[in-house]
Amino acid sequence: MKAIIVTVGRELLMGKTVNSNLATIARELFKKGIDVARNYVIDDNLKAYYKVLDQCDKDIVIFTGGLGPTVDDLSKEAVFSYFNKEVYVDEDTLRIIQGYFDRMNIEMTDSNIKQAHNCVGGTILENPNGTAPGVYFKENNQHIVLLPGPPHEMLPMLKKSLEYILTDIDKEMHSIGYKLVGTGESTMEEGMKEFYTMDERVTVAPYASIGEIKYIFSSFDEAALKTVSDRFEKKYKQYIYGLLDDDLEGVVVKLLNKHKKTISFAESCTGGLLASRIVNVSGASNVLNESLVTYSNQAKMKYLNVSKETLDNFGAVSEECAREMVIGLCEQTGANIGVSVTGIAGPTGGTKEKPVGLVYFGLMIDGKVTINHRTFSGSRYVVRYRATQYALNMVRKGLME
Amino acid sequence: MKAIIVTVGRELLMGKTVNSNLATIARELFKKGIDVARNYVIDDNLKAYYKVLDQCDKDIVIFTGGLGPTVDDLSKEAVFSYFNKEVYVDEDTLRIIQGYFDRMNIEMTDSNIKQAHNCVGGTILENPNGTAPGVYFKENNQHIVLLPGPPHEMLPMLKKSLEYILTDIDKEMHSIGYKLVGTGESTMEEGMKEFYTMDERVTVAPYASIGEIKYIFSSFDEAALKTVSDRFEKKYKQYIYGLLDDDLEGVVVKLLNKHKKTISFAESCTGGLLASRIVNVSGASNVLNESLVTYSNQAKMKYLNVSKETLDNFGAVSEECAREMVIGLCEQTGANIGVSVTGIAGPTGGTKEKPVGLVYFGLMIDGKVTINHRTFSGSRYVVRYRATQYALNMVRKGLME
Repeated sequence: MKAIIVTVGRELLMGKTVNSNLATIARELFKKGIDVARNYVIDDNLKAYYKVLDQCDKDIVIFTGGLGPTVDDLSKEAVFSYFNKEVYVDEDTLRIIQGYFDRMNIEMTDSNIKQAHNCVGGTILENPNGTAPGVYFKENNQHIVLLPGPPHEMLPMLKKSLEYILTDIDKEMHSIGYKLVGTGESTMEEGMKEFYTMDERVTVAPYASIGEIKYIFSSFDEAALKTVSDRFEKKYKQYIYGLLDDDLEGVVVKLLNKHKKTISFAESCTGGLLASRIVNVSGASNVLNESLVTYSNQAKMKYLNVSKETLDNFGAVSEECAREMVIGLCEQTGANIGVSVTGIAGPTGGTKEKPVGLVYFGLMIDGKVTINHRTFSGSRYVVRYRATQYALNMVRKGLME
Repeated sequence: MKAIIVTVGRELLMGKTVNSNLATIARELFKKGIDVARNYVIDDNLKAYYKVLDQCDKDIVIFTGGLGPTVDDLSKEAVFSYFNKEVYVDEDTLRIIQGYFDRMNIEMTDSNIKQAHNCVGGTILENPNGTAPGVYFKENNQHIVLLPGPPHEMLPMLKKSLEYILTDIDKEMHSIGYKLVGTGESTMEEGMKEFYTMDERVTVAPYASIGEIKYIFSSFDEAALKTVSDRFEKKYKQYIYGLLDDDLEGVVVKLLNKHKKTISFAESCTGGLLASRIVNVSGASNVLNESLVTYSNQAKMKYLNVSKETLDNFGAVSEECAREMVIGLCEQTGANIGVSVTGIAGPTGGTKEKPVGLVYFGLMIDGKVTINHRTFSGSRYVVRYRATQYALNMVRKGLME
C-alpha cells in the first residue's frame, strides 16, 4: 500500500515552521507496512487543493492542517467539494466542540460550527487534544484522511484512522521497535551492520533523538522478524530500556513501583525537569512525594546540608558537591532513592577545567552512593535534557542490579 | 515571483529525517520577496522526477538532494533529460572534486565523475562544503536550480543561485510577528477580521501552538506594514507578550530582573515544569534560588505549612489550598514572588465537581495574594504545559501592573 501526504499551511512555505508531521506520519505508516510515495506541501487556497488532488493517485491520501475555524482553514471544504460529497453539520461533534468551549469558559463563535462539518459516508475522527475533529472516508477505493496540523492533536487521530484503513488489509506487517539509552548512533553503527544484512525479509531502521535511539525491525514474515530481533535483544540488552511505546520516565516509575521505592531529586542545572518528567507519568504520586530545585549555593546548604567548605573548595559543580547533595536530599525528603544533578548548562559559565556541558550526578539507593559525571554537547536545553536522560538511566540501572 | 521546491530523498519519505531544508530555503526566499507556492517531497527514481516536473509551473524551481555519486543520485540526469539539455563533463569542476579527494587522501572513483556533469547553458554552483556541485540554468523563463541535500552544503549554494536569479529584483520584504498568551485562535478570529482586509499590501498569518498564538504581518511596503501592525499592537496590547524571537519564560525572567525580584514555585501537578522553564533561560540564577515540587499532601504541609484541615475540608485542588501554598512558599523560600499550582492533570483522578484539567493558581507579589483557576483540555502533558503558560502569564501581568 502506498500513501500520499498533503501538508497544508502557509507557515511551512514561509519557513516559519519545520514540517515535522511528514516524518511523524511516515514513521507510523512504515510500522504498518505502508510506503509514502510523495509529500506535497501546499498553500491554503482552493486552487492549490484541487491541483494537488489531481495528482493523488495512491491508495491512501492524508491531509494535515486546514481544519481550524479561520477563513484560511479549507481542508474540509476543498476535499469534500473535489469529491462532490454532500456536507452536513454533525450534531454530536458540535456538542463536543460546544462542551470544550463551555469547560474553557469561552463563548463559541459561528466560525467554529464549520469544524463540526462531515460528509455523507464520512467518519468523524475525534480530537482529544483540541477543537478540530478530523474526517475519514473511502472514495473509489481510495482512503481519504483529514487531520489537523498541530502534531500533538494529529498523532492520536492518525492512529485511529489507520485502524479504519487497515481493517481491509490481510497481509499484515509485523514490527518491533526498541528504545536504547546510554549509547549513540555512531557507537552502534559497526555492531549494527550484521542486522542490516542478516535477513532480506527484515528491514531495520534507526531513529536518533536527544539522548536516546530507536531501532525498528519490520517484516511480513513473523518468524524471520523474531529471529533477527531476538538476536538484537540479546546483543544490546544493557542499552534497551523498553519498546516503542515506552518512555524512560515511564519505565523508571514502573521499576520504582515494582520495588516499592520512592524517589526525590535535588536539581541544580536541570531545574525541575527531572521531577517534571516523573510527574508526567500518570500515577507518579505512588513514587514521588516531593522534590527540590536547589539552584543557588544557598539553597544547596539550606535544604541539602551541603557544607560551605565543599562549595568554597570544590565548587557547586563537583563530585564532592554532588555527593553531599544526594546524601542531604535523602535525609531531607525521606525518599528511598535520591538523585542529585549539578552542572554547567551553558551557553556561558564554562572554564577550561569545567567546560559548558559538564554535569555531575549523585545516586543514592539503600544508603549506597554512586557519583558519575559526563560532558554533554548542545544548546542549554539539550544539555539539560541529556542530563535528565543520563540520571533516569542511572536510576534504571540501579534498580535492575 | 513564485518558487516551487522539490526535495528528493527516500529517507524523508521514510520518516528518518525531518525536511528542514524546506524551512531554510523558504526563509531565504521570503527575505527576497519570493513566495514558495509548493513543496514536493519525492522518491529518487526518474519517473517521480518527470511526474513532478510536469507540475512545476512557477518562475523558480529548486531541487535539493540527488547530487551525490551513487546510482540513486539522479537529479542532474533527470532534470537535464527532461529539458532535453546537452550534457558534458566540466573539467574545472572535475579538477576541484579531484583536489578534494587528494586533500582527504581518498581515491576518487568513477562514480564521482558524474558529479562534474553540467548542461550546455548551465552555470556550476561550487560547493565549498562538500563534493557535490550544483547547477543553475534558465529555461523558457524558468530559473532551475539543483542543490545538494545536506543543509550546510545547500545553504551557501542557494544564496549564490539567488544572486543569479535576483539580478532584476530590488524589492525587500518586511515583516513583524507578535506572540500572544491568554487568548486563543477562535477567540481572536472575530476581532482579527479587520486585519485580514485592512490593506491588501499587508498579509497576516496566525500560527497556534500549545497555550500561545503568533501573528505575523508582512509587506513589501514598510509604511503600510507599520500602520497595520501598530493598530494590532494597540488593540491586543494585553495579550502580546513579545515578538517572534521571544519566549514567555524569557520575558518573565527579563521582567523579574528589571524589578529586581526573585521567584519561587510550589508545584503540584506541574511537578517542576515551571521551575524548569525559568531555569532554561540563561542567567536564571539572578531570579531563582530555589523551588519546590510539593506533590503529596504531606509535602504541602511540611514545606508550605498547608493545614490538614484545609486538605481535609477542601482537598488539595482548591482555592484554599492554592492560597495556603503560595503564602507558605514565600515564607519558606524568602522569594519576592511566589506561584503555587495545584490541579488534576489527568487522564484519571477527575470527578464531576473537579474534572480533569482543573488547575488552581496562587500568585503572591509584595504580600498580595491572587487566586485563579482554569480548566484545560488535552493530554496530561498538554494540561501541565498550558498550566505553566497560564502561571507565567499571571506573573507577567502582575509585574506589569
